[in-house]
Amino acid sequence: MMTTTHSLDMQVYTKQRREAVESALEAILTKWEKDLRVPKVLAESMRYSLMSPGKRMRALLCIAACETVLHINNGAQSEKTDFNLLEQKIFEQVSALACSIEMIHAMSLIHDDLPCLDNDDMRRGQATNHVVFGEAMALLAGDALILRAIENIIEGTPASVSKDGVLEVIKELSIAAGAPGMVGGQVFDLVKDLDVKRIHDEKTGALIAFSLWSGARLATYDNRASATQEQLDGLRQFGFVLGLAFQIADDLLDINGSVEVIGKTPGKDAASDKVTWVSIFGEDGARAKLSQLMEQGENLLKDHNLKFAPLPVLSELLSFAITRSH
Amino acid sequence: MMTTTHSLDMQVYTKQRREAVESALEAILTKWEKDLRVPKVLAESMRYSLMSPGKRMRALLCIAACETVLHINNGAQSEKTDFNLLEQKIFEQVSALACSIEMIHAMSLIHDDLPCLDNDDMRRGQATNHVVFGEAMALLAGDALILRAIENIIEGTPASVSKDGVLEVIKELSIAAGAPGMVGGQVFDLVKDLDVKRIHDEKTGALIAFSLWSGARLATYDNRASATQEQLDGLRQFGFVLGLAFQIADDLLDINGSVEVIGKTPGKDAASDKVTWVSIFGEDGARAKLSQLMEQGENLLKDHNLKFAPLPVLSELLSFAITRSH
Repeated sequence: MMTTTHSLDMQVYTKQRREAVESALEAILTKWEKDLRVPKVLAESMRYSLMSPGKRMRALLCIAACETVLHINNGAQSEKTDFNLLEQKIFEQVSALACSIEMIHAMSLIHDDLPCLDNDDMRRGQATNHVVFGEAMALLAGDALILRAIENIIEGTPASVSKDGVLEVIKELSIAAGAPGMVGGQVFDLVKDLDVKRIHDEKTGALIAFSLWSGARLATYDNRASATQEQLDGLRQFGFVLGLAFQIADDLLDINGSVEVIGKTPGKDAASDKVTWVSIFGEDGARAKLSQLMEQGENLLKDHNLKFAPLPVLSELLSFAITRSH
Repeated sequence: MMTTTHSLDMQVYTKQRREAVESALEAILTKWEKDLRVPKVLAESMRYSLMSPGKRMRALLCIAACETVLHINNGAQSEKTDFNLLEQKIFEQVSALACSIEMIHAMSLIHDDLPCLDNDDMRRGQATNHVVFGEAMALLAGDALILRAIENIIEGTPASVSKDGVLEVIKELSIAAGAPGMVGGQVFDLVKDLDVKRIHDEKTGALIAFSLWSGARLATYDNRASATQEQLDGLRQFGFVLGLAFQIADDLLDINGSVEVIGKTPGKDAASDKVTWVSIFGEDGARAKLSQLMEQGENLLKDHNLKFAPLPVLSELLSFAITRSH
């Protein structure tokens, strides 16, 4: 019998999936750009933001949730599986979805950066969309990205996934990104609502929770739905923990980071009087909350049948979110 | 035997359907407003634009297409049907869809009116959204309306409509409203593209064509899909004819109308150097095109089995679009 070493290398793991997402996005953009109904400058503006260098964290989470659930619930192959490798069969199920989540995320960045909102000139180390293409084009590129995201899920999800699943995923994305989620969180932020937990849960958590939940929701294996309700609930809750951890780490980076590390202007939160975890609970309070979130996240994975020793990717991603603030 | 008089009264017909749409929208808004995750001011901004006085033309077209196809293809009841009355059973099939189309239309008006685009202070005789709620809120209300529109179709379409139909309708809406449609048309308009037909087809025609097509696509009768491919194609083509007629009539009204009649500032097109049918072909050219479109629309209805003598509502709506410019 072979000795199996399950050596998950997070750098290899994330690189593989990130590249798969970049290729899938490139293929989608190339197809769109052949459509003569679409103005060239609009397509350029959409490409500029969608393909700007980024972590593709939400797409990664979507794929990781799908893989985790499939491997836990169909454990047979684990002995001979190299978990660093992304199985094409698995990726195809959520590839369109993962790309669409990145479109929604890109759209939120374009609109958030506009002068009437955060008025940011730099994003991910590049000039923001409206700086390059003008405000009107940035506005319209964001609108177009929302609609393309929806279209792309329907167009690109394979027939092996049930129609009910696709409809449920689109509905939940509309909620997570919309008034009860991301857009609502942006408004709470704008009006300087004091419930900073709610701001973060809606502005960041909702889409991250959706990414995890939906990746598992579309995970099918030999045409059987693979995620249990317990796992789906656990992934959603874990997403809010992860989202909050990301946001608090962001708040800390805004104080202690440099433009090179964070890719945008630091110190903007304080300058704009933004309500952040740090502004309310202080730096120590923020760091204490991060430790608490790490524990809470680990417990959620354990309690919801989401722990799979050879593929501890969800724990690793939470740990990454937290440690990057140090 | 009773003598039947099929007296379609367009005023009664449109009033009934408009009121049904207003009630349905009110019920949806009321439900949304109970959701504590949604910031009150965002909900107010969305309500302000969605419920501002309007013709509900796109919703009307959606319902009219559904009714036309059902009555043509299931003609049995026509003898005793009062076509002025909106049958509840028919309305339920497309009620959510019709409301969602109005959400997309409202969103497009909010974003188009923003200072970075048309910079309009008045719309439908009222202050525009950003004048009342500020630019940031108007931007976010528009984003939220797109996502609510999608969510609402999935949430509100009855189970009697096939999942395939719902998915196809959402996909086509994303295309009609997005980069290859309404948003793309807005960009062509913005960059003063000289192909005025394409601007109008995308900016106005695509969503109107979708309204007609989708109303027929979701028309089911005793669980059988009722619209033939011939009818669906015809309705889409008729929609582009109607959309162009509307837009040319709008262009003429912008020259000859008053603020009371058109509900917004007249003379803006010329002042902003907008490419319009009138600016390219002159007033006479525009009027000649309107006559040609009337004939073209009539022929389309005839050739695609969309003529139903007791319910000539599609002809009437085209005729209305054209005559309002006089």
